[in-house]
Amino acid sequence: MAGTDSQHQPPDSQPDPLSPQQPAIILVEPQMGENIGAAARAMYNCSLTDLRLVRPRDGWPNPRAEAAASGADPVLETVRLFDSVSEAVGDLTRIYATSARSRDMVKPVVPPRVAAAEMRICARRGETFGILFGPERTGLTNDHVVLADSLLEVPLNPAFSSLNLAQAVLLISYEWMLAGETSEGTRQETSEQRRELPVAGSWPATAAEVDNFLQRMEAELIEAGFLYPEVKRPIMLRNLRNIFRRARLTDQEVRTLHGVVRSLSGSRNRR
Amino acid sequence: MAGTDSQHQPPDSQPDPLSPQQPAIILVEPQMGENIGAAARAMYNCSLTDLRLVRPRDGWPNPRAEAAASGADPVLETVRLFDSVSEAVGDLTRIYATSARSRDMVKPVVPPRVAAAEMRICARRGETFGILFGPERTGLTNDHVVLADSLLEVPLNPAFSSLNLAQAVLLISYEWMLAGETSEGTRQETSEQRRELPVAGSWPATAAEVDNFLQRMEAELIEAGFLYPEVKRPIMLRNLRNIFRRARLTDQEVRTLHGVVRSLSGSRNRR
Repeated sequence: MAGTDSQHQPPDSQPDPLSPQQPAIILVEPQMGENIGAAARAMYNCSLTDLRLVRPRDGWPNPRAEAAASGADPVLETVRLFDSVSEAVGDLTRIYATSARSRDMVKPVVPPRVAAAEMRICARRGETFGILFGPERTGLTNDHVVLADSLLEVPLNPAFSSLNLAQAVLLISYEWMLAGETSEGTRQETSEQRRELPVAGSWPATAAEVDNFLQRMEAELIEAGFLYPEVKRPIMLRNLRNIFRRARLTDQEVRTLHGVVRSLSGSRNRR
Repeated sequence: MAGTDSQHQPPDSQPDPLSPQQPAIILVEPQMGENIGAAARAMYNCSLTDLRLVRPRDGWPNPRAEAAASGADPVLETVRLFDSVSEAVGDLTRIYATSARSRDMVKPVVPPRVAAAEMRICARRGETFGILFGPERTGLTNDHVVLADSLLEVPLNPAFSSLNLAQAVLLISYEWMLAGETSEGTRQETSEQRRELPVAGSWPATAAEVDNFLQRMEAELIEAGFLYPEVKRPIMLRNLRNIFRRARLTDQEVRTLHGVVRSLSGSRNRR
């Protein structure tokens, strides 16, 4: 997944740090600068920029965070520091608390996909919302969790459910991002798009072009004695046609395949 | 999200390292031990255990990987090492290549959610499948990508789409996991199924079977003088490989294609 295509600027999807229409990511007493940076990177991968830190252990700014952010500057440049969780969430109307443990608290528990859908509804109503993440070793205390409306729990391997901080930020940011585009209609579009191949400098071959190639190959095969016995010929031809129809050839590829058949059978034809 | 509840053993969902019914995660020439370990941790978070390494830069075992895996022992203990990508994928029938860049190759591009639904279908049929991840700095080369059936691309902020290796492994493992339990996943599976190939009496060809055919065809083409001038040979071979990987051949079809090449070139060889 390496390779940021930094000259490929999005037309209108540039995240706006001032827009409240995205979740705030609130890291409560984060310990490792590396984790703060990696969380910033994960956020910006998903076009999020509102990062809030509550009493980071090693102060702020933090060179290790900057290194780990790998260029997610729009996030680091707008980080806000708070002395308490309640100040950090003061402007929010909807708050989620991440947790890998079940709490003795009567709160809804939602997975990231559901939280993302809920937050999209909040966003459309102009609400403000955010997600609390606890310190790496201990997670959120009950005093922090009680400030939230809902618990956010990632459904993971029950025998090994401890996520790295930045991994947790990534999964939730990713679900938020996808929730913006996967309405039923869009999902169908996506599966439609899946069938569209990127054809660099070429074009999907027409049925006639493919057919022309297939007929040519068939003629060569008949001449070479491959499509024998004749009783089996129709099924063998059908199988070959299936292979090449399924490949969804480009015009360039059809020309290449003509060349292949010409070359392979060339000496026989020249005899 | 801290706090693994290790005494909380899952009743029946314990991942089975011997089960082929999960995607293989194939890291090609990974550089940092930390990233291998973090990828192993992300896999095990999602109950995956089939980790394959192709020429890891710092050898194997790697103490830094062990530290970063944070206890994902069932993954590290069963790691397999390979000298080449084609060996690492030899037993697989369906292969995805992760990529943040658009390639000049004619291959389907799918997001993780669609890939996960497709792999669930493979799993139900008893197929084997896996995902290729490139080295941290450079990503997969075209020579590696050409071995895959489809490109797997995470839809991210276009201005900042470079994911850390372990983050990429996590997102894909996470989608795989959720696709096994959500009704949303099931709905996508159903629409995928309509596009799945009926393989009456035959079986999807393994990567090794397809590779064997391609090498044979290439040898014939070189002998016939088709792959000339030599400077153009790699790109022509790559294009041919893409065509046949995309067709998702069955074992029976591979045998048919062997016959086609044998017939077409037969007279030349008999001379």
